[in-house]
Amino acid sequence: MRTFDLITAESLFVKDLRVVRWEQYGLDRDMPFQAMWYSVPPGSESPVDQHPELELSIVVAGTAHVLVGGVVHEVTTGDAFLLGSTEAHVVQNRSADELLTVFSAYWMPLEAEGSEPAPSEEADRPVEATAAVQ
Amino acid sequence: MRTFDLITAESLFVKDLRVVRWEQYGLDRDMPFQAMWYSVPPGSESPVDQHPELELSIVVAGTAHVLVGGVVHEVTTGDAFLLGSTEAHVVQNRSADELLTVFSAYWMPLEAEGSEPAPSEEADRPVEATAAVQ
Repeated sequence: MRTFDLITAESLFVKDLRVVRWEQYGLDRDMPFQAMWYSVPPGSESPVDQHPELELSIVVAGTAHVLVGGVVHEVTTGDAFLLGSTEAHVVQNRSADELLTVFSAYWMPLEAEGSEPAPSEEADRPVEATAAVQ
Repeated sequence: MRTFDLITAESLFVKDLRVVRWEQYGLDRDMPFQAMWYSVPPGSESPVDQHPELELSIVVAGTAHVLVGGVVHEVTTGDAFLLGSTEAHVVQNRSADELLTVFSAYWMPLEAEGSEPAPSEEADRPVEATAAVQ
């Protein structure tokens, strides 16, 4: 078993967000996704982010306000949110004094595999025209 | 974007642990792993668990004491632990009053794919003879 400590991990800063990328752990051959933690200071927010990878996020401290397509979703500690491929998103920490920390796993859209010759509709599920978002 | 609320999710009980399996969200074609939350009441522990899937866990509330191979690993809120394939493990909540909640992603060992004809050593990394553990 391996343990991963957020506080002592190598990190970089994107604006005022502390970002801990899991590449440092050398798990590429073991995990079917990439991962990171990031922390948003009180009153701050992430830059707009948009990428082909789907992204599953777990809020491990604080409360996230996630802006997607002009809608704000509040996600509290312990809860999760899943961003579709290419969904533009901003993650805000509206607290005055509490750090927001999120663990995210992200991966490229899956091929429709394992099943029948696979219709492309579901695997390539269009993501609600989010390209125009933000 | 979709959000996932731990409190209102469908759950089942394994002993006194509340388990929320993500199968209920129908994301099999979108995520390259299975997932669950589980909550361990104060003073309780999980049954011994052992399975072929690797398991990455994020502690979202409380502190976990994870027993693997006769060693206890303390993992605090926000931190993570990765169990190898077939590693027998028990997760304890030693707190007197705080719930322990963990988010876990799990998946079958990856084939050595994408790279060269792939030596099997790394993909099939033996898991420190943990079969004899516990």
